[in-house]
Amino acid sequence: MRIHIVKIGGNLINDKKKFHDSLEAFLKIEGHKILIHGGGKKVNFFSDKMGVTQKFVQGRRITDKDTLDLVVMTYAGLINKNIIAKLQSKNCNSVGFCGADGNSLISSFRKTKNNTQVDYGYVGDITRINTSFLKLLLKKNIVPVLCSITHNKKGFLLNTNADTIAAYIAVSLTKEGNEIELHFCFEKKGVLKDLHNEESYYKKINLRLYQMIRKNKSIKNGMIPKLENAFFALKNGVSKVSIGNPGYLTDVNNKTILCLY
Amino acid sequence: MRIHIVKIGGNLINDKKKFHDSLEAFLKIEGHKILIHGGGKKVNFFSDKMGVTQKFVQGRRITDKDTLDLVVMTYAGLINKNIIAKLQSKNCNSVGFCGADGNSLISSFRKTKNNTQVDYGYVGDITRINTSFLKLLLKKNIVPVLCSITHNKKGFLLNTNADTIAAYIAVSLTKEGNEIELHFCFEKKGVLKDLHNEESYYKKINLRLYQMIRKNKSIKNGMIPKLENAFFALKNGVSKVSIGNPGYLTDVNNKTILCLY
Repeated sequence: MRIHIVKIGGNLINDKKKFHDSLEAFLKIEGHKILIHGGGKKVNFFSDKMGVTQKFVQGRRITDKDTLDLVVMTYAGLINKNIIAKLQSKNCNSVGFCGADGNSLISSFRKTKNNTQVDYGYVGDITRINTSFLKLLLKKNIVPVLCSITHNKKGFLLNTNADTIAAYIAVSLTKEGNEIELHFCFEKKGVLKDLHNEESYYKKINLRLYQMIRKNKSIKNGMIPKLENAFFALKNGVSKVSIGNPGYLTDVNNKTILCLY
Repeated sequence: MRIHIVKIGGNLINDKKKFHDSLEAFLKIEGHKILIHGGGKKVNFFSDKMGVTQKFVQGRRITDKDTLDLVVMTYAGLINKNIIAKLQSKNCNSVGFCGADGNSLISSFRKTKNNTQVDYGYVGDITRINTSFLKLLLKKNIVPVLCSITHNKKGFLLNTNADTIAAYIAVSLTKEGNEIELHFCFEKKGVLKDLHNEESYYKKINLRLYQMIRKNKSIKNGMIPKLENAFFALKNGVSKVSIGNPGYLTDVNNKTILCLY
């Protein structure tokens, strides 16, 4: 099976017009496709409103129980179901779910590193992927829409990075004999050379160039994990990986193409 | 297919122990089963916290946009996904969804009645049921867990009564040749004769008795829609309908059995 996996990032979700345009672009993809999303700043909006204080330890956000509840409500509830309602209104039969549904994404609480005392709270690192439910939907031409929540099979829901989920699912489906194209979508046209110039995106980044610009520190910090996930997917056989604006999903040129060589 | 449909009510969801016990009782049901839930007073809890004012017109709650968002977040997010995480931890493979997923429950905005000026807001009355996705799950021995949100196929999510959804699904599956047992679960042992005596529940209510006690006004107001849904199901061929405590789900005696004659 040839499958497009599209991950849409937070800034596309927060903005009403960008959100609408992203879904329109996703709808235009022909054939099998999977949409993966987190929730961006919507959670901050609700936590502010509800007086839930966002905790940071050593610069890292801590997902405490109240924040997790808000993440689940926002990602699996508000955003996921509104995406489904929109897709259904365009006759795109789809089903929204999280990693607990169909036992799709099993994770474990993130371990505290030896040299730190940081307890990340309700954050999960993926330990196992089960693609049965995903494939059940795809075979019936139902579009899976997955939000970035996992479970530990012991009754706990956990918060997991959406880029990582997209990369892991791409790798699992590749290993099962599918041809995967993985698209990380965000508000920029691609990975920018110059943050102040929206047109300065790399057309192509291979592993060597990535290591170089990483060393140079010439790319934005938040971009590193996305590129790590992209190269993890490529190293594990995913055929095509790109980063860019959802408007260019079906365009082969206007994006940053990642490749090993 | 023989299928148990279990609807759990708000008071069972609000209380941590009752919620846990309800799911334990549900897990004990053998064979095909479907769980249907709303969200009870959890929404009030969050609306209070977020300063969303609950609106009532002529004694009826109005679902405005902010309240709908909270309903979607609470039902489809927090409650639905925590049910799934708990069921998965007991090796019960399950998938949680709402009426927009798989285009399962199509509704339309509730019409304002001629003699009133009440606009109910984002409330949906079911116009069409599509059991394809439900059956797809059941055939794969995946337990469907459905929350009481529908969509109008024009991009809007709508709030719909969970008892009504349970009755409609029971009727649809019956018409498709399945044998359905429908259980409305709440915190009481059954429909009470005397509200001050928890043991005074009816063992059996037939249509004639129901019409009588309804005329007498000897039953609590909130019980009428539940009984209406129960008799709607029976009149449309559902083989067994009961109202009672989830603890007695697998017990044939300790509950109120509804029947036509």
